[in-house]
Amino acid sequence: MDYQLLTASFEAPPGAQRWSAQRRLHECLRAAIRSGQLAPQTRLLATRALALELGIARNTVLYAYEQLATEGLVCTDRRGTVVSTLLAVAVPRATAPTARAGLAKRALALRASPVPAELSGGFAPGVPALAEFPATLWQRLHERSWRAHGRSALGYAEAGGALALRSAIADHLRAARGANCDAGQVFITDGTQSSLDLVARAFADAGDKVWMEHPGYFGAHTAFRGALLNTVGIAVDEHGIAPSASDWRRQRPKLIYVTPSHQYPTGGVLSAERRLALIAHASKVGALIIEDDYDSEFRHEGPPLAAMQGLVEDAPVLYLGTFSKTVFPALRIGFVVVPKALAAPFADVLARSTLRGRGADQLTLAAFMRDGHFGLHLRRMRRLYRQRRDALVASLERHLGDLASIHGDSAGMHLALVFDDARMDDVAISAAALAAGIVAPSLSAHAVGPRAHRWCGLMLGYAQVDVAVIDGLVKQLAAVVRRTDRRRG
Amino acid sequence: MDYQLLTASFEAPPGAQRWSAQRRLHECLRAAIRSGQLAPQTRLLATRALALELGIARNTVLYAYEQLATEGLVCTDRRGTVVSTLLAVAVPRATAPTARAGLAKRALALRASPVPAELSGGFAPGVPALAEFPATLWQRLHERSWRAHGRSALGYAEAGGALALRSAIADHLRAARGANCDAGQVFITDGTQSSLDLVARAFADAGDKVWMEHPGYFGAHTAFRGALLNTVGIAVDEHGIAPSASDWRRQRPKLIYVTPSHQYPTGGVLSAERRLALIAHASKVGALIIEDDYDSEFRHEGPPLAAMQGLVEDAPVLYLGTFSKTVFPALRIGFVVVPKALAAPFADVLARSTLRGRGADQLTLAAFMRDGHFGLHLRRMRRLYRQRRDALVASLERHLGDLASIHGDSAGMHLALVFDDARMDDVAISAAALAAGIVAPSLSAHAVGPRAHRWCGLMLGYAQVDVAVIDGLVKQLAAVVRRTDRRRG
Repeated sequence: MDYQLLTASFEAPPGAQRWSAQRRLHECLRAAIRSGQLAPQTRLLATRALALELGIARNTVLYAYEQLATEGLVCTDRRGTVVSTLLAVAVPRATAPTARAGLAKRALALRASPVPAELSGGFAPGVPALAEFPATLWQRLHERSWRAHGRSALGYAEAGGALALRSAIADHLRAARGANCDAGQVFITDGTQSSLDLVARAFADAGDKVWMEHPGYFGAHTAFRGALLNTVGIAVDEHGIAPSASDWRRQRPKLIYVTPSHQYPTGGVLSAERRLALIAHASKVGALIIEDDYDSEFRHEGPPLAAMQGLVEDAPVLYLGTFSKTVFPALRIGFVVVPKALAAPFADVLARSTLRGRGADQLTLAAFMRDGHFGLHLRRMRRLYRQRRDALVASLERHLGDLASIHGDSAGMHLALVFDDARMDDVAISAAALAAGIVAPSLSAHAVGPRAHRWCGLMLGYAQVDVAVIDGLVKQLAAVVRRTDRRRG
Repeated sequence: MDYQLLTASFEAPPGAQRWSAQRRLHECLRAAIRSGQLAPQTRLLATRALALELGIARNTVLYAYEQLATEGLVCTDRRGTVVSTLLAVAVPRATAPTARAGLAKRALALRASPVPAELSGGFAPGVPALAEFPATLWQRLHERSWRAHGRSALGYAEAGGALALRSAIADHLRAARGANCDAGQVFITDGTQSSLDLVARAFADAGDKVWMEHPGYFGAHTAFRGALLNTVGIAVDEHGIAPSASDWRRQRPKLIYVTPSHQYPTGGVLSAERRLALIAHASKVGALIIEDDYDSEFRHEGPPLAAMQGLVEDAPVLYLGTFSKTVFPALRIGFVVVPKALAAPFADVLARSTLRGRGADQLTLAAFMRDGHFGLHLRRMRRLYRQRRDALVASLERHLGDLASIHGDSAGMHLALVFDDARMDDVAISAAALAAGIVAPSLSAHAVGPRAHRWCGLMLGYAQVDVAVIDGLVKQLAAVVRRTDRRRG
């Protein structure tokens, strides 16, 4: 036993400045045993001797030895304390899990996100104007709801979420999104990813077909693959998903995932006729439509289109909403609205599969909505995002108008810059832009399944980009595009 | 068109007190069209006439008609506005989703929780003493972290969580739980259920075998079934999981879920020898152990046993922890500690499958830990829970000592009251207790798989039950047990 070493590490184990002497000794003996520095069957110094050596009380050593014995790391015999032999046979070091060896096949098969979610700045899509959020007001409401509900909000909550929030959401959706729902159909989740996980597992079994827009939202792809569904990419034209008669016949879906208000990533808006046709077809084949209305609150031209959920009575639609765009992403609150007939069974599934809490956050959000702050903030952001969009569109036309055209800028927080020549390597351009500090995911990276799609270009989020810097960023981006004009294929 | 009705509903649509006249009109026309009151091809009143009828401005009517047209609910011809025919063909009412019809088989197969999570009071397990939580201090820390990090904490966060919190957890685990980890191995989740969902999908494929303690924690069962794993129940003796040689040979596991510090629900503590043997066996067959250390901070007798995670170098252990018991359930923050070699691949899987935020909550918790409040609160709760346990044990021995014995009371927040006669109907007794206002889940309800187990009794949580009321509750419970003394089989 290397007492030098023991003494040294006893004096300064990492991060142990505030530990008691007992804990420090126990820790470094344990580390020495685990690492093999103190081999099995080594006899430890007598407690009195070690205490003397280290200049500490004998009780301190006794305590440490006792704790090692409880943990099975040492045994005591009549002559003292020896390192246990159990450890010698325990774990052959070679079988410690290595690298990706431990990962499941389904985890290895997950696709990387086309854009790291924690990136912000120009032109990261999906990030709202955080600088404009009334953070002080929010904190005041949080404090108030914490004081008002205090301890009752500390415990586990009902699976559906706080009723005050469910009602506030139902009211808002009826008024602003033309939805047809009451609070009992609204279920609070930890955001859209959690909504997708829940509905994929509640409403489809492994191997069931789920239609996705192609190109489409990779987060949905991840959730569906996680649930072992069979994803089928359905091509998107300039208005959105466009299934053919043969798709309906030969690829009969169980779930249909769509972003009708602002197709992700191309920005198309599905027309009323196509919404109704989709509902009619889905009803006929018994499929449920997942309507992800992620940034529908921001419509820059014309009145907002009503959600599919409310278009007809009892539409077979699971409506997904989020407060990541309208309030702030870190909040992690989203929701699912299910058809009336599915509300009770879905509540039952949730109660069996998930635990809820976060009462104070939910009640803060409910107050934010009830007191009119939400509506006010939305109106401010609509105005702001429209200005930013106008600036981005003008700038893109100026600097890249000869190479690309703009799609999907009538709503939402991002637009699609589509290259006129579909042989441009949008993936390489996106990578070069990122290297230059500009976030601009390629449309190609959003392909769902192997089939090629006609979309070649970049996704540009403008919600959090100040008008003053837009033109500079676009100039930089244009330089990258022109520099990286390699063609594919 | 029933103008009486329209006028009436225009005047008082539900919850519309604060809507503008435009929105009110639009809403009730839409409702009338959707419900069929205004049939397809019905011609709407001319805008001027309707405005007169309702006593509102003509522009208001124009706006409403325009919005209906955008939504595809009406069309305009030269003579005016008619209800669209699209709706007539759209959705046959009969195909609206009904009752459980829409649910997936796997959702229908989920088991009900033996105890509704939102129940508290005597003797709901898993609920800490919320009345003792320093809620005002927490709110102050929250406010401070909100102010200090403000807008930077509003956005999406790294998949692993805030580094300050990951370090605070790693430090705590090394000191208090004998864990062998650094911050890079710690991954923040939305609580243990979310940890289980993540590890089940990251480390096992559909059909892989996962061992569970039998009886065991139903939440783990739900997560594993959700991930389509094949759960194998391994019998639990008084110390915890006790796999036989034949289990190792014939039921070779990919994952092994255990609660070694305080078996859920029976309360046994796995000995050091058995922990080491489990690690050795798991290493040999290439399985990963999921160590759920849910209430290990509360040990009422002797020094705390170190976590399996730190027992040997590079143990093949996924360590799961939660702040639901040590801080408060509504917080919804838990974590997974993975072996060093798996940290990078797991981080990658998380980045591909989940979005994070909740920066302010994470930083509040980090401050709560760093500033010593966490340690102080734990010490206070340990003292309190020990008192409550003592009172419960004494009371149970007094009122039910002739019928049952107490197991698993050396640690945690609950104990198991085991009936001497295993033919007692603990499920019926639990139901009768619930009807009398006492939460006391049966041990039988925690069976994993069809095989019978020897455990017959009740799970009694005492953490949130005031000493003053314990004896009264136990007397009531004893009366229920004696009244419900039907035997099974």
